[in-house]
Order: sequence, then C-alpha cells, then structure tokens
Amino acid sequence: VSTSTGHLLALIRSLGETTRAELASTSGLARSTVAAQVGQLLSDRLITESGTAQSTGGRPATLLRFNEDAGAVLAADLGATHSRVAVCDFGATPLVTEPLEMDIGIGPIAVLDSLSEAWDRLLDVAGKHETDVRGVGLGVPGPVEFAAGRAVHPPIMPGWDGFEIGAEMTRRFGVPALVDNDVNIMALGERSAMLDPPNDMVFVKVGTGIGSGLILGGRIHRGATGTAGDIGHIQIATAEAPCRCGNLGCLEAAAGGAALAKELTAAGLTANQSRDVVRLVRGGEHVAIHAVRRAGRLIGEALASIVNLLNPTLIVVGGDLAGAGEQLIAGIREVIYQRSTALATHGLEIRTSQLGDHAGVVGAAMMALDRILDPADVDAALERSG
Amino acid sequence: VSTSTGHLLALIRSLGETTRAELASTSGLARSTVAAQVGQLLSDRLITESGTAQSTGGRPATLLRFNEDAGAVLAADLGATHSRVAVCDFGATPLVTEPLEMDIGIGPIAVLDSLSEAWDRLLDVAGKHETDVRGVGLGVPGPVEFAAGRAVHPPIMPGWDGFEIGAEMTRRFGVPALVDNDVNIMALGERSAMLDPPNDMVFVKVGTGIGSGLILGGRIHRGATGTAGDIGHIQIATAEAPCRCGNLGCLEAAAGGAALAKELTAAGLTANQSRDVVRLVRGGEHVAIHAVRRAGRLIGEALASIVNLLNPTLIVVGGDLAGAGEQLIAGIREVIYQRSTALATHGLEIRTSQLGDHAGVVGAAMMALDRILDPADVDAALERSG
Repeated sequence: VSTSTGHLLALIRSLGETTRAELASTSGLARSTVAAQVGQLLSDRLITESGTAQSTGGRPATLLRFNEDAGAVLAADLGATHSRVAVCDFGATPLVTEPLEMDIGIGPIAVLDSLSEAWDRLLDVAGKHETDVRGVGLGVPGPVEFAAGRAVHPPIMPGWDGFEIGAEMTRRFGVPALVDNDVNIMALGERSAMLDPPNDMVFVKVGTGIGSGLILGGRIHRGATGTAGDIGHIQIATAEAPCRCGNLGCLEAAAGGAALAKELTAAGLTANQSRDVVRLVRGGEHVAIHAVRRAGRLIGEALASIVNLLNPTLIVVGGDLAGAGEQLIAGIREVIYQRSTALATHGLEIRTSQLGDHAGVVGAAMMALDRILDPADVDAALERSG
Repeated sequence: VSTSTGHLLALIRSLGETTRAELASTSGLARSTVAAQVGQLLSDRLITESGTAQSTGGRPATLLRFNEDAGAVLAADLGATHSRVAVCDFGATPLVTEPLEMDIGIGPIAVLDSLSEAWDRLLDVAGKHETDVRGVGLGVPGPVEFAAGRAVHPPIMPGWDGFEIGAEMTRRFGVPALVDNDVNIMALGERSAMLDPPNDMVFVKVGTGIGSGLILGGRIHRGATGTAGDIGHIQIATAEAPCRCGNLGCLEAAAGGAALAKELTAAGLTANQSRDVVRLVRGGEHVAIHAVRRAGRLIGEALASIVNLLNPTLIVVGGDLAGAGEQLIAGIREVIYQRSTALATHGLEIRTSQLGDHAGVVGAAMMALDRILDPADVDAALERSG
C-alpha cells in the first residue's frame, strides 16, 4: 500500500469524483489517515469539495474532486512553420490558445523568446499571473532525449541540436519544463481525452511529412535514441518516388502532404501545403480526392505491418491531412483489414483525432502535469508549504 | 522505500553478490531491519553466504547471494514438431535438457502428458524431486492470452484454442504455471543472459516461419490480443511469393525456412526444413548460400521499418536458420543500415542468439521465476512457512 498524500492525490485524480469512504476502501488506508490527507489537500487547494453523494442512509458523503483550477501550465506544440501555444488548467484543458506562424529555423533562443511573449499575452487573456504557472510542456518536430529535455540531431530544426530546451525554459519560468517529440505529445493528448484510455495505441500524424507516436503498455515508447515512431521512411511495396532521405519508395515521399501538394500543383491545381489539399478535397476536386484516397491506401500499407507487429487497440489519424476525414481514412482501413492478420485486427478501431489541432498542446500540458503531480513531487511540495 | 523481505530478496537477486551493509545503503532500510530479513531469507535457504568481502579495515563482511539451488522449475519450449524440455535451477540455468520430437497437433492433453513424462525423467537425472519444483514455464508457437494462460486462435496448434494450459499444469504440479508465446520467451531468455540487458530489443526467430518477440521499456510487449511481434506477414516490397495466409509478398513466404527448403528442393538439393538449409550452407553449397543471403536481405527490409518504428538498442536473430550465422546476418545488416534512418541505427547492435536452441527454455524458466519470486508472493510464502 502506498501511503503518501501525493499517492492519494493521484488516486483522486484518476477517480474523477469520489468520497472519503471510497478513498479508504480503494487505497486500503485507514479512514483517519484518509481524513488527515484529504484535509491537507483541501487546505492546499489541490482538491475541492463538489457537493454531496446520493446516500443509501445516514449522513450524505461529501464529494471530492481534483481541483483543475489549482494552477496553470504553459503548453506549446512547435511545428516547422505552424505552431500552437496555450495556457492550460490543471486538467490539461486549454483556457486560451492561439496559432503562431513562426519558422523554427530561426533557432532556439528566438523561438523561445516568441513563445514567452505569446504565453505572457495568453496569461493576461486567461486572467492568470505568472505565479499561477506551475509547469511548462513543449512538443518539437524532431527526436528528443527526453530525460535531458534536449533535441538530438533534429533534421528539420537547424540550430537546435543539443540545445537544452527544458533547462532554458526552467531558467525563464522557474518551474519544471518537459520537452518531447511533437507526435508523442499528440498521442498523449488524444489519449488523455478518452474516457477509457487504451494501453496500446498508435497516433499517426499526416502533415507535410508523416510520423507516429506510440503508446505501448500505457506509456509513450521513445526508443533508444528518442526516434521511435518514425514511419515516414518505411518502404512501401507499391511506391517508388524518390525521398529527400536518399532512398526510394519511402511512405512520406508518396503520401505526405508535401508530396500530394506537389502532385496536385503539377496537375494544374493550387496547392502549397496539406491544408490546401484538404481544401480541394472538401471542394469536391476529383484529382485531389483521388490523390488523398491513394495516400490513405499507402499509409494503410505501412500501418498494416505495424498492426501485425504491435497489435494495438486503436489507431488515431491526426495532422492537417486528417482534415480530409473519410477520404483519407477509408483507404487506410481498406488496406489494414486486407493486409493485417485477422487476429491482429480483431477489435481494432481506426479513426481520426478528436482533438484535432489541439491534441499537441493538450498532450504537452498533460506531460507537464504528470511530472508536477507525481506523488513524490507533491509530497515534497506539501512538506515545503508546511 | 519498499520494506518487505520479498523486496530485499529481489534486490539481492539483482545485485548478484552483496553484503548486509550494501543492502542497507541501497534499500534505505535500517541495518537492524536488513539483519532480520537476511536472517529469515537465510533460514528459508532463499539466499546463501558465499565467503567474505575484502575489507577496508575492521571485521570482514559476509558475502550474500541469491541461492540458485533453492528450488527447481520445469521449462519447455514447444514447437510445431520440435520441442525442448528442461529442468532449471532458480537462476534459470538448465540443469538438464533434451529435445523432444512431437507433433503439437496431437492436442493439449497428449502433449502435456508427454511433457510430464519428460520432466519426470529429467528430474531424476538432475537428482531433484517433485517437491523441489516451485514453478512451470511454457512457450507455445501461437498467440497467448497471458493473464489467463490460454492459447487464443493459434493457427498451427489444432485443438488448443481456448484450452487453459496454465491451469492444467498447475493442477498437475501444484505450483504456479506461466504460458507465453514461444518467441516472447526466447526474447526473455536471451535478455536474461546479458550482463547489461537493454530496455528495447527485438528477438527475431527465423525457423520454418518467421516471428519476433519485442521487449520495450524493459517489458515484453504482447499487444491487445497477444499477437504482437508477428512479422511473418509483413509485406516486402521486393517479394511477390504467395503466402499460406492468402496474401502476396509476405516475408515468411519469401524468407522462411520452409520457403527456402522448397526452393532448394526445386533446385535439386535435399532440404526438408530449416536445419537442412543450414547444413547445405555450412557445406558450402552455392545455391543454398545464395538463397540464405537473399533471405537475410528480405528480413532486413522488414526489420528496417521496425528499426525506424521502435528504435531498439539490439536485434537478436535466433531460430534454426540463425545457424547459418554471418551468411544470414550479413544481408540483414546490409539492408537495415541502407534503409533505416541514421538516427535510428546509431548504436544499434545486430547479432545472432547467444543461447541458440536453449533461449526458449531459459526464458520459460525465467518467466516462472519472475512470478514465484515476485516480492508479494515471497512475503506470503515466508508468512506461511512461519
């Protein structure tokens, strides 16, 4: 039995709405211990009372819940050119968020300056102060050495290699700052919004390029050097286009948003990026629909192998091109059900992202919250606050 | 701090050779607590004293280590036709082991009867009694619902679907019995024999068919329905052979031992199975060497995608065809380094199995040991023994 107040907070956070009696029976702690720890959490405003439970007789029990207003976290999802910033509450819900057009190639200091400005502005709008900020979460479009909060040889982030992103943000804001790959935080965000989060899921981001975030056994799988989930350069049997990586037949070179935009441009349409492709599909443009359906089947080829390998419960498709909806998903489903084994697809769900553009910032906030609400850290903070 | 005697045993097991002083400093427990728990473990023969440590002054400290002779576990690695049975000590080392030729299609009762007979015979040879047996570990060539110890729709195990293998073995031997997919236990066995076990590794078994066992974040990844690691039906860009699963271009249909044996037979050589192919390669038969090298490159194509996706530290190639050694590995390495991204292959090691034929039984024994030496179970057993 874990007996600390921090563990009790984690239990309350996972239960949603609960009572002292339920906490005692679920945790195995004595009612007197639960009462004392609940008192401490209430006085530190980490939980709140929210009415009374329907009673089966006797005095109605007071309902307790995690206090999502206990503080704020700063979140950002950085892309090569399109980013999103947000101020979130302790439930990882964005209080206020906005897109930010910025070239990540201007380097880490200039990017973090812009982010700081944007966060200051959003804190104002949300009616929060810097003193409310307890953590920072950031996603970046490249591989990250997670424990060190450092980008490692990121191909599309010139000037960032080895830069201590987490340490620099902690220096600026005086709170824990976590950094991970953008697709990992999108996977985390999407999962955190589910009522019944699956243990094994694959989040596929189809934007300019194609990447994925893996949640396996309930945890993000990052791999030995933080590059896990890289599906853009998987070789596709039916594709032969040359890729910027130097190989032929990479998934990204055939089915990424950049490749599709180029293809539609060659066909005489106006398409510079994924969003233009989606606009054309929604407008009923036959050539664009045809291209996106074919891209879906190619992505399905890569995912068919991944379904056999990882046997996930859920595949979520996000990123700009997911805006094409069923036109993209239909081909993915078709090939997975045709190519993966029946055992692996039994019970598999394949759908588009529920959070859309917000998956990244929600995941970035959740990553920061999971750290600052870690039981050991909560216990240490409670001790300091007396 | 975990304070139970079972946790202290787990610590001693992980440290190898240790002293009471080191245990106190590593665990954070009081020296008096360590002394009492060590006394209990010594009297229950779960640990032994093994000499004295070199001292820097004062009384030399007594060395303590986990007692690998504390009991025996029964282990078996079942294949479609070739199996291996063993009696192992508490270090998962086979005390005695032998191959067993048996068609798994005779059904679970007949197979478990044969296993029981073989284990009885091996216990005699090892000078052990049934009362020494504390656990049973079994690998089977199909998907397993691990928690239930049950095969689930196994394609090549007629009559086994839904059979409660673990429960039946527990009924026969009166001890905990664990069941998993054969490639998962091979991965576990190979990993348990390493001095510095990696967190993320892929074990590829190349036999009649092709499968893999994934260890991710230090744990076996089984997936939603226990079929994770199934790489035999990944579609290979450069292959077109029809597969028994009904698709074209599956890895197994082009590079599995059965496919190679058939190909060599068609070329006028004598080859019924993987081992015959290896024999021909070792004999310098040009056609066989050519076929195995090509098979290596095809396996490399599948693994190149998996290296991008999972970013492992280590790939171990086992199974009968691994007996071809460098002739098989060379092609695998060549394609992985050519097709996977530089970031993912940085620091990646690719090699053949160190345990060879024994990886399965060592892993099966380790799986049983991890269960019976689980701290909570050890504490419960110590309480019962007084």
